[in-house]
Amino acid sequence: MKLNDLTEIEVQRKVNEYFRLADITLKDEEIREIQVNDFGLGRLDDLGLQLFMYINTERYCAKEWVLFPRQTCPEHLHPPVESGDPGKQETFRCKFGTVYLYVEGEATSNPKAHPPERDRDQFTAAHEVILTAGDQYTIPPNTKHWFQAGEEGAVTAEYSSTSTDEHDIFTHKDI
Amino acid sequence: MKLNDLTEIEVQRKVNEYFRLADITLKDEEIREIQVNDFGLGRLDDLGLQLFMYINTERYCAKEWVLFPRQTCPEHLHPPVESGDPGKQETFRCKFGTVYLYVEGEATSNPKAHPPERDRDQFTAAHEVILTAGDQYTIPPNTKHWFQAGEEGAVTAEYSSTSTDEHDIFTHKDI
Repeated sequence: MKLNDLTEIEVQRKVNEYFRLADITLKDEEIREIQVNDFGLGRLDDLGLQLFMYINTERYCAKEWVLFPRQTCPEHLHPPVESGDPGKQETFRCKFGTVYLYVEGEATSNPKAHPPERDRDQFTAAHEVILTAGDQYTIPPNTKHWFQAGEEGAVTAEYSSTSTDEHDIFTHKDI
Repeated sequence: MKLNDLTEIEVQRKVNEYFRLADITLKDEEIREIQVNDFGLGRLDDLGLQLFMYINTERYCAKEWVLFPRQTCPEHLHPPVESGDPGKQETFRCKFGTVYLYVEGEATSNPKAHPPERDRDQFTAAHEVILTAGDQYTIPPNTKHWFQAGEEGAVTAEYSSTSTDEHDIFTHKDI
């Protein structure tokens, strides 16, 4: 499978297959609203994140995201923004598959996932948290994190304060 | 089935059976954290709500709730609270079964659900919204609402601003 060779709707349909594995029901018109993010790198098989946003208000946000097998969401953090907001805080609750999540903190020896070979020096967070269905983890604001799915891919709910993607800071030099 | 005759853990296990119908995975220790609310009325078969809280911070909240067949969550609203909070706003996303939701607004003719006979004068919101799997609806702050499951029961995700149950105002005279 080369995700990069697919059209957007083909990727969206593939994402929906993962949602169905987790018994998540989207309407046909919602499938077209699935966001396919390659972070401008054009290397979706390696680096990307697909998500459906249920709601994003000035107060709270909820979405479900999918990572394809061994796809990696690049390292980033949610910094404080104006008006006293300390930055986005987010809670992951895994629904299907395995998520290898890396956050700031003591580096884990022999981690189960690695960034793509050519991007290794663009990743710094090395404290490993492994999530499978029913596991959850809350990432504090202003904390670097990145994550990769295991061999089956992964479906995860994300509950958070407001999402303001334009404020996110990515560590990858090309993003 | 008389829910009122069951112990708390028996009700919690029944709730978990509904969660499993929606492919929602709780750990054994989480099943014991399922909240069984009879609103102090001791009539759980008629009036109640069961829920599992994933996260409730000062910024956001996420839970999944279960209504047993034809069980009703009594009418209430989330008023403004101190410090400029306009009151809790919540987004329901149905996962399983049918929810008959009633909110303030134009009364719906021939509604599909009715409050329990003896409680009818304790309910006022009469604008009907019907939710099945994949449907969602956002209830603004400070708006009266109540809801009842259809014959199969219902499982619904609720994404919201912070939950502060102690501020909720119920219209039922006995709550």
